[in-house]
Amino acid sequence: MKSSPHVSKGLDDVSVGVSRISWVGGETGELVYRGFSIDELVPGVPYESVVHLLLYGEPPSSDPSPEIVEGLRRARPVPPSIERVVDALDPHLPPLEALRTILSALGDGSYGYPPTVEEGLRLIARAPVLLARYVRRAAGRPPVAPQEAGSQAANFLWMLTGESPEPAKVWALEGYLDLLADHGMNASTFALRVAISTQSDLISGATGALGTLKGPVHGGAPSRVSEMLDAIGSPERAATWIAERLARKEVLYGFGHRVYKTEDPRAIALHAIARRVADPHRLELAELVERIALDALRRAKPNARLYTNVEYYSAVVLEAVGLPPGLFTPTFAVARTAGWAAHALEQASDNRLIRPDIDYVGVPKGQHWPRPVARAPADPSN
Amino acid sequence: MKSSPHVSKGLDDVSVGVSRISWVGGETGELVYRGFSIDELVPGVPYESVVHLLLYGEPPSSDPSPEIVEGLRRARPVPPSIERVVDALDPHLPPLEALRTILSALGDGSYGYPPTVEEGLRLIARAPVLLARYVRRAAGRPPVAPQEAGSQAANFLWMLTGESPEPAKVWALEGYLDLLADHGMNASTFALRVAISTQSDLISGATGALGTLKGPVHGGAPSRVSEMLDAIGSPERAATWIAERLARKEVLYGFGHRVYKTEDPRAIALHAIARRVADPHRLELAELVERIALDALRRAKPNARLYTNVEYYSAVVLEAVGLPPGLFTPTFAVARTAGWAAHALEQASDNRLIRPDIDYVGVPKGQHWPRPVARAPADPSN
Repeated sequence: MKSSPHVSKGLDDVSVGVSRISWVGGETGELVYRGFSIDELVPGVPYESVVHLLLYGEPPSSDPSPEIVEGLRRARPVPPSIERVVDALDPHLPPLEALRTILSALGDGSYGYPPTVEEGLRLIARAPVLLARYVRRAAGRPPVAPQEAGSQAANFLWMLTGESPEPAKVWALEGYLDLLADHGMNASTFALRVAISTQSDLISGATGALGTLKGPVHGGAPSRVSEMLDAIGSPERAATWIAERLARKEVLYGFGHRVYKTEDPRAIALHAIARRVADPHRLELAELVERIALDALRRAKPNARLYTNVEYYSAVVLEAVGLPPGLFTPTFAVARTAGWAAHALEQASDNRLIRPDIDYVGVPKGQHWPRPVARAPADPSN
Repeated sequence: MKSSPHVSKGLDDVSVGVSRISWVGGETGELVYRGFSIDELVPGVPYESVVHLLLYGEPPSSDPSPEIVEGLRRARPVPPSIERVVDALDPHLPPLEALRTILSALGDGSYGYPPTVEEGLRLIARAPVLLARYVRRAAGRPPVAPQEAGSQAANFLWMLTGESPEPAKVWALEGYLDLLADHGMNASTFALRVAISTQSDLISGATGALGTLKGPVHGGAPSRVSEMLDAIGSPERAATWIAERLARKEVLYGFGHRVYKTEDPRAIALHAIARRVADPHRLELAELVERIALDALRRAKPNARLYTNVEYYSAVVLEAVGLPPGLFTPTFAVARTAGWAAHALEQASDNRLIRPDIDYVGVPKGQHWPRPVARAPADPSN
């Protein structure tokens, strides 16, 4: 039956139009938000200013962006009707499974089409509030209300722990949030844009994006870097452990990327942050494992252009910030709400239904199996 | 910066590979499930046999499919931990907003990768159970447990009303569920396949699919057909109402489709069902409005090849079945869970990350506004 002109199973060689939000330079190892290389932003630029840059397309008048600080502050208090859903969630759910339902529960019928900046700020503000609420409740602890004056990064740690976070941890988490805030047309952002393309709402798009981020091929692996480092345990075991793992054809986590064919600039920035905040022994182990793993992987696949990806030093940084591995990918999602909101706004600003074709190669019409599906009498009233 | 070779904003002219599940013949007005034209299936084939056909790729040994009947029966009882989330939902939510959170809440950590037929049956079985539970609770009524011996169609009406449904209504709903069970590569199914392509789970995919179906361009308009017929009210007002509406450049609901350039075969089948079960006055009004609307639309756009789409007689049939307009799109989603499960299984059977590119046309790197985003001291411990 009719074939479409351009067949592309993974859409690798297809562009779904134009974007002005961020540019991923896979060959050169660059990530640019609205003209700003992430090297110019991280570490040090407040997440609120990055959110401003992504949502409005230009830098704020001062840092941190007064509009975004105020917008997030106002949006953080969550209506009790939504808190009740979060409090009803099984406390044994994996956090990412809970976060998908939390994001969906944010949709209280007030998110419309087209999406607005205000809706974006509600998503960005409330996702960490409710994630922290869920995590504390799962641990048998009462919720901690956000602090009026706190930044997004400081508030997240405050709401998780109920303690004033160390400035170095806030600084490191802020850098992480900045670096993960957007990344061109990745799979989760694409899922969101598909949803918005049907004139659905921001929460529907973000929920779908989270469900897509949940897959380990996209966002689900940084916790496995920590597990891998834990399993190796000490520097002297690294070489043997890696060699044995590769001999069993098992994956080493934190290396290789579909787009970056050189060092992921986020990995470089996160490595620099890790050098400042990570436990020296953990950092030493991570750096040694990285060197040995890259050597081994490159020997095994000389032409593969394998480099450390964002997950590797994400794990080391988020550990140092004090987050448990189960919260790594949920924290990635918390950072990415900014990019999702920006892409929802952009998709709606010049919208077109995203609906590819697929080539049917199944049983042709009428040439089905000898036994047809039985048809009951056409009308029960006969 | 680097452009991708094939640019396609809506992916209209792109095929994302091959499928053996269903074929949509847009030029000829055909819909084929696994070799069976829907004309061969509807009305009369049990939804359970259509589910069998879609999930297993071949017809059942007898009708209704014993495996699917048994699988759905076993899967219908929902764990209390999930019921609690549904019972915590704000009863004032639009049903489709509630259904997105309900689908997400089905994900209790037990759905893995790759997805399985058993997981698919749990999704198909439980979505209507929890939707009915929510709808009754929102109306202040206690939940009605599914009937062990009831079909999917009969159980849905039973759980909504608490009364044994009339056979004609079950028959009509069964036809509707059959007809809406799958439809090639539509936007919601595509969103699901994007999620599965990251090795995410079926519930994540289905939640994203629902969020995409929620957009009125995809699944959100059948209730507006009922509203339109209500607004017209009586046959003698039809011509004037339609003329005035078109003069105001407002949309008439239920006409036109991105793929079908002739009569949508589902519209024909639903019209036939409506002739059997709809209130004669409502049917007469619907048929008259259809004729006048198509005439007017074709006069306004002589080259547009506009036909009645699936939404139009969906509304008439679902009204006749006794569903309120707010449940039309949720019921569409209930039907489509079968196709979503089938596409998740197929995507995982030969998987590849679906990740298109997008062309960055924003501010080039380093050429940003004169005022840079301020960078705070690089390290708070300095």
